[in-house]
Amino acid sequence: MAYLLRTAGRAHPVLARSIARPASRIAPIALSRQYASAAASAVAADNGEQAFFPDEPTTPIVKTPIPGPKSKDAIERLGKVFDTRSLNMMVDYGRSYGNYIADLDGNVLLDVYAQIASIPVGYNNPTLQLAATSPEMASAIINRPALGNFPQHDWADILETGILSVAPKGLGQVFTGQSGSDANELAYKAAFMWKRQQQRGGYDVDFTEHEISSSMNNQAPGAPALSILSFKSGFHGRLFGSLSTTRSKPIHKLDIPAFDWPQAPFPSLKYPLDQFSAENAAEEQRCLDEAEHLITSWHLPPAAAIIEPIQSEGGDNHASASYFNKLRELCKKHNILFIVDEVQTGVGATGKFWAHEHWGLQTPPDMVTFSKKAQTAGYYYGNNELRPNKPYRQFNTWMGDPARAILFRAIIQEINRLDLVRNTATTGTYLYDGLQSLAEQYPNEIQNLRGKGQGTFIAWDSPRRDAVLKSAKGVGINVGGSGERAVRLRPMLVFQKQHADILLERLEKIFKS
Amino acid sequence: MAYLLRTAGRAHPVLARSIARPASRIAPIALSRQYASAAASAVAADNGEQAFFPDEPTTPIVKTPIPGPKSKDAIERLGKVFDTRSLNMMVDYGRSYGNYIADLDGNVLLDVYAQIASIPVGYNNPTLQLAATSPEMASAIINRPALGNFPQHDWADILETGILSVAPKGLGQVFTGQSGSDANELAYKAAFMWKRQQQRGGYDVDFTEHEISSSMNNQAPGAPALSILSFKSGFHGRLFGSLSTTRSKPIHKLDIPAFDWPQAPFPSLKYPLDQFSAENAAEEQRCLDEAEHLITSWHLPPAAAIIEPIQSEGGDNHASASYFNKLRELCKKHNILFIVDEVQTGVGATGKFWAHEHWGLQTPPDMVTFSKKAQTAGYYYGNNELRPNKPYRQFNTWMGDPARAILFRAIIQEINRLDLVRNTATTGTYLYDGLQSLAEQYPNEIQNLRGKGQGTFIAWDSPRRDAVLKSAKGVGINVGGSGERAVRLRPMLVFQKQHADILLERLEKIFKS
Repeated sequence: MAYLLRTAGRAHPVLARSIARPASRIAPIALSRQYASAAASAVAADNGEQAFFPDEPTTPIVKTPIPGPKSKDAIERLGKVFDTRSLNMMVDYGRSYGNYIADLDGNVLLDVYAQIASIPVGYNNPTLQLAATSPEMASAIINRPALGNFPQHDWADILETGILSVAPKGLGQVFTGQSGSDANELAYKAAFMWKRQQQRGGYDVDFTEHEISSSMNNQAPGAPALSILSFKSGFHGRLFGSLSTTRSKPIHKLDIPAFDWPQAPFPSLKYPLDQFSAENAAEEQRCLDEAEHLITSWHLPPAAAIIEPIQSEGGDNHASASYFNKLRELCKKHNILFIVDEVQTGVGATGKFWAHEHWGLQTPPDMVTFSKKAQTAGYYYGNNELRPNKPYRQFNTWMGDPARAILFRAIIQEINRLDLVRNTATTGTYLYDGLQSLAEQYPNEIQNLRGKGQGTFIAWDSPRRDAVLKSAKGVGINVGGSGERAVRLRPMLVFQKQHADILLERLEKIFKS
Repeated sequence: MAYLLRTAGRAHPVLARSIARPASRIAPIALSRQYASAAASAVAADNGEQAFFPDEPTTPIVKTPIPGPKSKDAIERLGKVFDTRSLNMMVDYGRSYGNYIADLDGNVLLDVYAQIASIPVGYNNPTLQLAATSPEMASAIINRPALGNFPQHDWADILETGILSVAPKGLGQVFTGQSGSDANELAYKAAFMWKRQQQRGGYDVDFTEHEISSSMNNQAPGAPALSILSFKSGFHGRLFGSLSTTRSKPIHKLDIPAFDWPQAPFPSLKYPLDQFSAENAAEEQRCLDEAEHLITSWHLPPAAAIIEPIQSEGGDNHASASYFNKLRELCKKHNILFIVDEVQTGVGATGKFWAHEHWGLQTPPDMVTFSKKAQTAGYYYGNNELRPNKPYRQFNTWMGDPARAILFRAIIQEINRLDLVRNTATTGTYLYDGLQSLAEQYPNEIQNLRGKGQGTFIAWDSPRRDAVLKSAKGVGINVGGSGERAVRLRPMLVFQKQHADILLERLEKIFKS
């Protein structure tokens, strides 16, 4: 950790800058130099730990109710042309920094929601700023290639030094996309093509005339009677195929036609885990049995099963490593693909780079999908037969975005430079222990605390969840929920013990009120 | 046209630069200044027209067969980690400029394919370079917001001065997305929600318990038995919902499960149009009758019809303004939405900003989708009831990308500055006339020439289409096909008469060989 940033004793540079002159008038190169020139050593945070963002605010600032008057005006204006009914906070990103998010009224909140778990290494991160102002980024922005037809000469290099440098074990190839939903649908398409080639008799067997003609009418056998198995409360996106596998909430699904695909139960574990080990093992076995039943009997046979390591929208539901190992073997036994959706769990938040590393699988997943903190998207795979057997079968105009792939490479460099996966593991343990103490003190406020040993990917149930989320803003914390009752923590990878202390203290303030 | 670029008598700056030192070492600001400082006046092209890119090569350069030795090595390397079987050309974007695309072996081709019709204003366009190196772009890259929850304070401004400044008449609101497929699926979702609210009795009527519970099982009524009507040979994307409306080619559809949605015939016109007006009018009426039959009788009633102004992947198929007017009225009569897919036709290529402006509709479309040359994506709409009646119904993590919205704003500025929509109209007429002459001379090579009065959006059928596309590279032209037999021209908006002359001359060379 040789290179850390400091400007000890000076004002928070982004805030100061924003006040002095409009953000749009500052040359990015000059800004980056400002950070780079201050890189010699690190300041210590209160608890003795090196701070990744020494210039962060030391505490949240709450000046007005949120939204304040300026935000209200801006929301009203935006509402005329863009749907604002899901708006949570109108943000001034120029004044946001590190773990802190700023609004238009001078409020600066500790952000443990991080754009729905998608900001990895802090707002206005200087390393990313350098990548974003590089000539190769500018070229990627203005000369966007149709990657499948006209890739840029250094695309292999960008992949190898970026996306593929963190490929899960055994999965050395990638198909790039643009969002988590997109990544999952691309994986489903690969799964269907793979399964149909098997049914057809092998990778090189050609289509029949009947398949060709029926496909154009959306009928079997060309449009096959197959499915993807997913799990109750799972979330895999909101496009038509991915939404058919999403089982999180009715508001996500209502009024949208869906494929008649099967859903298996996801284990419903009892907490604390050590007090319910027998019950939980039985519950997991029940769920595995039901999954096997659906795999062997559903009227549209599954080509693949897709599952999240932690159900991240549907309530922060966990299962044991043993469950996932058995599910993986079940897929192998019945010759269907095992897809792990790491869109929300991936890229370091759980104390491993990929959450499924916690399982110690004998056979790797067939595909692992990613997005969010990667700031790009796609699926990893290893088996060559998951490349469709002809060109243009898995294809679209852009097939990803080199600009975002370059950004992910910078994110990976920052994660490595600051050892951030280890940070989420150690900070996560510290935070979990603090929450455990709070739970003992406020048992009605923190129920079913979960995520032990899973980095900062921690959640608990609250009987008054929505009120807690709302109160949090008033004490300077931006936090989200998942499912119907869970408070979910999704801090960035640069969330440290000093931030955990603030979070714990503010939570207690809410519980006391 | 006050500001044009010139460095008359000097070497092509991008080429010279690339040779002198690696592209990655050049500061973008300096580069932009180089362009900006040379902006006083314009040089004239050979035909007396002002050249938008005076420093472009004056002619294609073909040094090796394509792919040449360096490209072959690079393709082999990329092939280990990324599917390269649809690869057309390995590109050096640092050496590409204006209408010219460069490879790794010193070949520089006139590009009339333009990344599958998605590059609008030339490679390494200086105006876009400025936008790409601006501080607001850097912030948009590194602080990517979840737009539905945490929009940036200037999002309304970015929309109003960019995407919405070119909104089709009557459609003053936008929902942003990330690709053409995504845009169409978002429009379908809006259509389904709208239709179900009507069936439910109005915009504010709530869901029933039965709808809520059945939606979670992918069953009606929660997952409704509704459809989207599309047209034979249409292309609307390759995600599961959009692919169900795509009817272009079997290779796009084979092995992917699809919804049992209806397809109406698309008029099959005979050329030249003025010789077959009675037959073509009858054909269009036949297609309208069949569409009406499907709308009123299909077992899954359509909530909307989607159509391209010109079927751009399925063979460059055109229909008359009269046909589209009648189709629009048909949708209104039967209370289904009329969605115009302008993903490929939009943003100036047809001599209007939006191709459907050619129709002179009495009632605007309900939604217009866009992507490609916009370098971002989404759908425009006007009716407030196309905003779903509750928050979080039309929602996803990113909901678009401010970085790409900022780029589209710069593209719009460049289109306005250089009057590029007018340019495609006038250059298109010039090019069409030249092709008409060639067709008379080589009637076996150019058949069913189409796109008259549609800017540079021109195509023809060729009995040896694939051989023509391949030969074109050898004479310095990068061109693509559509459907089974069409050669499609998709030059950028900065394609001028001097480029048309080169294209016509090289085509004749192919036809003679």
